Amino acid sequence: MYELGVVYRNIQRTDRETADALAALGSATVHEAMGRVGLLKPYMRPIYAGAQVSGTAVTVLLHPGDNWMMHVVAEQIQPGDIVVAAITAECTDGYFGDLLATSFKARGARALVIDAGVRDVKTLKEMEFPVWSKAISSKGTIKATIGSVNIPVVCAGMLVTPGDVIVADDDGVVCVPRALAAKTLEAARKREANEGEKRDKLASGVLGLDMYKMREPLAAAGLKYID
Amino acid sequence: MYELGVVYRNIQRTDRETADALAALGSATVHEAMGRVGLLKPYMRPIYAGAQVSGTAVTVLLHPGDNWMMHVVAEQIQPGDIVVAAITAECTDGYFGDLLATSFKARGARALVIDAGVRDVKTLKEMEFPVWSKAISSKGTIKATIGSVNIPVVCAGMLVTPGDVIVADDDGVVCVPRALAAKTLEAARKREANEGEKRDKLASGVLGLDMYKMREPLAAAGLKYID
Amino acid sequence: MYELGVVYRNIQRTDRETADALAALGSATVHEAMGRVGLLKPYMRPIYAGAQVSGTAVTVLLHPGDNWMMHVVAEQIQPGDIVVAAITAECTDGYFGDLLATSFKARGARALVIDAGVRDVKTLKEMEFPVWSKAISSKGTIKATIGSVNIPVVCAGMLVTPGDVIVADDDGVVCVPRALAAKTLEAARKREANEGEKRDKLASGVLGLDMYKMREPLAAAGLKYID
Amino acid sequence: MYELGVVYRNIQRTDRETADALAALGSATVHEAMGRVGLLKPYMRPIYAGAQVSGTAVTVLLHPGDNWMMHVVAEQIQPGDIVVAAITAECTDGYFGDLLATSFKARGARALVIDAGVRDVKTLKEMEFPVWSKAISSKGTIKATIGSVNIPVVCAGMLVTPGDVIVADDDGVVCVPRALAAKTLEAARKREANEGEKRDKLASGVLGLDMYKMREPLAAAGLKYID
Amino acid sequence: MYELGVVYRNIQRTDRETADALAALGSATVHEAMGRVGLLKPYMRPIYAGAQVSGTAVTVLLHPGDNWMMHVVAEQIQPGDIVVAAITAECTDGYFGDLLATSFKARGARALVIDAGVRDVKTLKEMEFPVWSKAISSKGTIKATIGSVNIPVVCAGMLVTPGDVIVADDDGVVCVPRALAAKTLEAARKREANEGEKRDKLASGVLGLDMYKMREPLAAAGLKYID
Amino acid sequence: MYELGVVYRNIQRTDRETADALAALGSATVHEAMGRVGLLKPYMRPIYAGAQVSGTAVTVLLHPGDNWMMHVVAEQIQPGDIVVAAITAECTDGYFGDLLATSFKARGARALVIDAGVRDVKTLKEMEFPVWSKAISSKGTIKATIGSVNIPVVCAGMLVTPGDVIVADDDGVVCVPRALAAKTLEAARKREANEGEKRDKLASGVLGLDMYKMREPLAAAGLKYID
Repeated sequence: MYELGVVYRNIQRTDRETADALAALGSATVHEAMGRVGLLKPYMRPIYAGAQVSGTAVTVLLHPGDNWMMHVVAEQIQPGDIVVAAITAECTDGYFGDLLATSFKARGARALVIDAGVRDVKTLKEMEFPVWSKAISSKGTIKATIGSVNIPVVCAGMLVTPGDVIVADDDGVVCVPRALAAKTLEAARKREANEGEKRDKLASGVLGLDMYKMREPLAAAGLKYID
Repeated sequence: MYELGVVYRNIQRTDRETADALAALGSATVHEAMGRVGLLKPYMRPIYAGAQVSGTAVTVLLHPGDNWMMHVVAEQIQPGDIVVAAITAECTDGYFGDLLATSFKARGARALVIDAGVRDVKTLKEMEFPVWSKAISSKGTIKATIGSVNIPVVCAGMLVTPGDVIVADDDGVVCVPRALAAKTLEAARKREANEGEKRDKLASGVLGLDMYKMREPLAAAGLKYID
Repeated sequence: MYELGVVYRNIQRTDRETADALAALGSATVHEAMGRVGLLKPYMRPIYAGAQVSGTAVTVLLHPGDNWMMHVVAEQIQPGDIVVAAITAECTDGYFGDLLATSFKARGARALVIDAGVRDVKTLKEMEFPVWSKAISSKGTIKATIGSVNIPVVCAGMLVTPGDVIVADDDGVVCVPRALAAKTLEAARKREANEGEKRDKLASGVLGLDMYKMREPLAAAGLKYID
Repeated sequence: MYELGVVYRNIQRTDRETADALAALGSATVHEAMGRVGLLKPYMRPIYAGAQVSGTAVTVLLHPGDNWMMHVVAEQIQPGDIVVAAITAECTDGYFGDLLATSFKARGARALVIDAGVRDVKTLKEMEFPVWSKAISSKGTIKATIGSVNIPVVCAGMLVTPGDVIVADDDGVVCVPRALAAKTLEAARKREANEGEKRDKLASGVLGLDMYKMREPLAAAGLKYID
Repeated sequence: MYELGVVYRNIQRTDRETADALAALGSATVHEAMGRVGLLKPYMRPIYAGAQVSGTAVTVLLHPGDNWMMHVVAEQIQPGDIVVAAITAECTDGYFGDLLATSFKARGARALVIDAGVRDVKTLKEMEFPVWSKAISSKGTIKATIGSVNIPVVCAGMLVTPGDVIVADDDGVVCVPRALAAKTLEAARKREANEGEKRDKLASGVLGLDMYKMREPLAAAGLKYID
Repeated sequence: MYELGVVYRNIQRTDRETADALAALGSATVHEAMGRVGLLKPYMRPIYAGAQVSGTAVTVLLHPGDNWMMHVVAEQIQPGDIVVAAITAECTDGYFGDLLATSFKARGARALVIDAGVRDVKTLKEMEFPVWSKAISSKGTIKATIGSVNIPVVCAGMLVTPGDVIVADDDGVVCVPRALAAKTLEAARKREANEGEKRDKLASGVLGLDMYKMREPLAAAGLKYID
């Protein structure tokens, strides 16, 4: 349940170095490193392929069909932030277009993650301002009702607290809580470290069955080969 | 409710100049200029990114899994038209492919908007014949039942009357009624005229909060800042 | 209903020449050539545009959230195969990423068709390993429960028997049973043979109404023209 | 496209006798009698089973999350009317509850058909005020933006003009245009007239194959029996 | 892939006693007894609550919007059968109503399971002819294209072979292959046999944690209690 | 993001009297009294009509297809509690049936709210143990992976903290945070207090337009009546 009509100006952001370093690892590796939790629902898709970012979350709670608070959250953006927008009910309207993107970019935002729609997607791509959203829609919004900024929000099924790290790429969007960011970065780097070696082995034709020593547990589980 | 089995040969098209001029403004601006109405449901997506068109609607009513009337509507196309296809029940079959696109293009059609599926999408992209559809599907259709051409139809939740203007781009599809086209063009141009100035201000770091003088109404609405 | 815990090592693949030749015809033509059956549901979409493949099916049955059997099926891949993965319940998790793709590719697989999600899609595109899937998701899977390999499976609503031919492109995925492959290839080639001539006629402005001699049957069906 | 901010006070209702008589025939028979058109999308479901009504449409156009115009349409209700509510964008909010139902009923309305949500469904059932809707939701609405009353609207994919007849039961909702109502009633009655006889025959074990003389056309279409 | 245009008159039905006995156990217990497979997708819902049946499957393959083959399958029904209807593409039309139900019932059918829509649901309930379907819709169908009867079909994601046992109740629909029916009945009865004792224990306040001896494995898996 | 593998034994429940009193007001009134927030997504539906409950939330986090933690949460139930179950990914499996319901009921639970499926729904109705769920499914679950009990969870898009009040009826499910429960109860009672008077007026034919004095603001908003 949400506190309405408030803007928290001071939030504790994950330290910049950790938040920035997670981008390179990608959402899938980070999600694994956290124990396979933290993922926003897979209906959240990038509006164009190829962007891969991480940053600290500033959050905004919006009402259906109303983007007034987008202008309020713009002022709270610091360089390296990613805006995470939740809506109080399901909505596919286009809350965000090239003008807001210009403003967000000028403030230092790296991306928008929104559980609703956006528009001007051709221009957003040209501007290289990535967005992960539920929909694309020309439908505009009004500016009539206040929500909140920098309160914890549920976005696409995941709780996001201001200052958490957001990692987003073509595979989806993951939220890493601030308290777990350093540990997650370390675990993710470890996961990645031995991926190169694995990849080489698999490319040479070694089977995962052998590389991961799965034949025995598979047999123990009852798997039978029939010629 | 639909009149079945008729082809209206003489429809009143929006004047060419107005219909053509709306393309440059895009679906989002045009939709705003009409008072935020006229948009087809956002499940209508382009089969490839980047096309931006406008044109006069010729309409066709089809039955599920039957594209016979596509050949009938082809004859009614005039240069600058966009074919708008509605189906009498929900269907994702591929009603339209490269052969029909060749024919439509030869007649001067600019695009197809269809509340169903299409196929041969790789070839359609190579031909640069844009389509906005609900689905992509290899599934073919039969030619057994007659529908109608150039009657008013409901396509993706929006009433489209033959001769209306269709504006379509990566953000979606908007229908502008013929009677409102001139007024909408004017309003859309006005909207766009001062966007450049706004964009420059926002890019320089001016906040929408200040540019749009929102601080006072937000405070009046009860918004509170907490440090 | 599925036989669980078995791996069939010897399957009867459609002959290589026939299986390979179907790719060039594309899913829409092949689907028509079979009498408009054989298509997997249209929610199966390529993770990147432009790939067009055919190959012999090796099948794998997986449990929700569990990709253990992916390593088992890897061993059964022969050059020219396409892996078809079915799940025992609906699931959008990311069962497959760049490591498994490396292994599948090393074994000679041409593509994956999976009624669930995949991840590492940017890398898969760079590797040129095409996938048709229901979802894209960072969500990882566990390795705890055994399924089966090379049993007949239902994938996206279509029965696929090991050794059948899979044809997949931007329009969708079609399954051609082994027993029908030769006949389907012949029929598909015939369909395609006279498409060039038709395309030329339509491009020159000849109407389908005349080319297909539809005016009389349309009138017989009751179609009326109104001026 | 919609005219906003207007209330048409004088609409031409289908004559009462015809409008009332259609209820007994039910939505399926009426839909058939019109040539299998006129049906609202099947996601429109009754909030409780068993109601079967017909009446003349008064229409209302609402904005997402805003039910202000419901009070405006209430005044335009005459005994025997059914309120048909369309929304300018997709929304599942609960626009209507027991208080509005009390008012609608006092004005003589027979039912509500709404392309959105309603609430207080237990009380509505006790009041015997039937509703066909897309959703049930506790979510309340605001009263901030004006729409229109008694303009033609698209509701659940179907164009409804004020004064048309609405027929609704457990199978769905059909709209019969005023101009076709008398003819449709006659056709529906004819359809029903010989259903009793057919039912008796089928109940006695006569097959539809024989009763409808289908064996020959099925054989002509190529159907083969295999023992 | 389906064989079109054939009716198999002689199918091997599961023996009547076994097929009949499975009803009492219910779909959930039967599904467990088979190793948690065999379930049709959960979007298959009963048109009215409370029916619980089992019977031998006769299958029919239909085309979208075409119920011609329903009359063909009627002739193949024997007492104790359940008709399982699959469609070659997604469709929600109402393929089946009270007349066909009268005929099916006269032939001895116990139920219909259809991956599409039905209508006349109020009458079907009064007749006590249960149906499990994907949709309810007034939309009628035509009789133009032949499909097949008693071939293996995929219905709601599950392969159903003629003669298999169908078990359906408020929880869903399960298909038990003929070869597994006797074994499944035995396993299901065993499962049920000790449910009464378990229920009594749980009702008396004994915890599943203790009854199933889960405390140790939970601790081993790392579960921690925090006061 | 979730803490995995923990069971909090001591949670602060909303005081019993307040928690119990909210049931009578219903989810719609309570949702309004909180300022139109707190509602779980409307896809959460009761498995049978007519139940109306409130109680204190005990929460459980489950993995897809795994109901092991259901037995763990059972021990933490106190009389007057409602179990709120969240899943780490989308799933429609049947996590809960008559045996668990027997155990929950013996512990004093009033209901289950689960963002997944349940089964044995006929028995649950006979037992009068209400459930609000996303799905009904025979599909069983395994007991292999640990989640958590009494951590804050996101259920159907809403954050639920252990000890919050859950109010559920035919209209949906609302979560009232513990800190707001007393204030919400008071506000809800006020709302309800004058509903009786309003209902009487509306039943007598007084229009909401007059009772709520809407004519002037509607005219000010530009509404025009046309004769």
